[in-house]
Amino acid sequence: MDDQDNAQPMQRPPAWNGIDAMTDGDLDRHSRIRCLGQALATRGLRLAVAESCTGGLLAANLTEQAGSSSWFEGGWITYSNRAKQRDLAVPASLFAEVGAVSGEVVTAMAGGAIERADVDYAVAISGVAGPGGGSDTKPVGTVWIGWGYRPPAESGATQAGPTTFASRFRFPGERQAVREAAVDVALQGLCAHLGGKGWSQQVASEWSSAHWPVAGLKWEEEPRA
Amino acid sequence: MDDQDNAQPMQRPPAWNGIDAMTDGDLDRHSRIRCLGQALATRGLRLAVAESCTGGLLAANLTEQAGSSSWFEGGWITYSNRAKQRDLAVPASLFAEVGAVSGEVVTAMAGGAIERADVDYAVAISGVAGPGGGSDTKPVGTVWIGWGYRPPAESGATQAGPTTFASRFRFPGERQAVREAAVDVALQGLCAHLGGKGWSQQVASEWSSAHWPVAGLKWEEEPRA
Repeated sequence: MDDQDNAQPMQRPPAWNGIDAMTDGDLDRHSRIRCLGQALATRGLRLAVAESCTGGLLAANLTEQAGSSSWFEGGWITYSNRAKQRDLAVPASLFAEVGAVSGEVVTAMAGGAIERADVDYAVAISGVAGPGGGSDTKPVGTVWIGWGYRPPAESGATQAGPTTFASRFRFPGERQAVREAAVDVALQGLCAHLGGKGWSQQVASEWSSAHWPVAGLKWEEEPRA
Repeated sequence: MDDQDNAQPMQRPPAWNGIDAMTDGDLDRHSRIRCLGQALATRGLRLAVAESCTGGLLAANLTEQAGSSSWFEGGWITYSNRAKQRDLAVPASLFAEVGAVSGEVVTAMAGGAIERADVDYAVAISGVAGPGGGSDTKPVGTVWIGWGYRPPAESGATQAGPTTFASRFRFPGERQAVREAAVDVALQGLCAHLGGKGWSQQVASEWSSAHWPVAGLKWEEEPRA
């Protein structure tokens, strides 16, 4: 592991306008989900998920929360490429061009989930949880997470589809550790948006690199056009 | 709880031709999943899931198993009725007629999952995990589990669609305990089929009432036409 080489100095992230508790890196997962659920429910917003390598682990955690049906719509466990294509309208060409573990695919998954489920938010996860499946360019622990949201009507946005972006991570540890870390980071990004002053690829990068609550993680940014 | 009133004498189930390990009630969940995965993979069979109250917990357990992509296709977390209808073709009329927690709905979910995912096996779960949502006729802990399979070509079956059936359970405990028990029973039914000499509503009932590995569970059978 060469995580230390790129270590970022720990510092407070840019101030957030919103729900401080949700973006508190020390918050345990279930407290964060409780805050997230409240934030969604009180605004009348609904969330869907699209999971590949986490295989339902994010959804299982969300639905452990009593009352989650008031803000959680459901989701897709698109473990196969065929499922990603069929259920989330991920273009088949992407699998050959960039692979299932890519920013292109997770943004397509998140966007597809929002459109198909007709929800306000979606999170998509695709990675190499291991122990097999790793490669030089996508070693075990490589996970792309995509977030998407439908701009609220009052924002005056005129775009037709949802806004999506993605970030690449490399999580240490074995299969389940990689999956658990992906779930936490997916939730943190979602909370940052709901608790924040806007959410973009740039903000996500600043926030994540400055405020990384899981020790030893290597953040690898790859901005999307 | 009146579980004791209907308690069945513990006895060995009818002998199974197949994989004894899979139907061993003492097997822990992950060992059972490992056996299940081997049985599916060696026969070239694939599995999909459709989860409502368990919200991804079954899939999360399946995919914790390394190499599960060779036999697990993916699935749907159809937490809302809208999702059950949209993704699994559950007839909308059923929600008004019998409710989402019903044998009709879980068999429709299992059949829909097999058809849509084009797989050999599916399991569907819909229940009242609590703490809210219970009623006199469907108290907290009520869970319907539906299993479906596509008859193998060599069986000479001429039917067009998959074979499905369902059973109703009442699991004790709080929300997460109900969800965990549902996952275990869903897996056990699947293993009974893969390890057995045929699988039907009747066999499922015999097996389940005679060989119930989780203490304190109340089995309530409601045969389906």
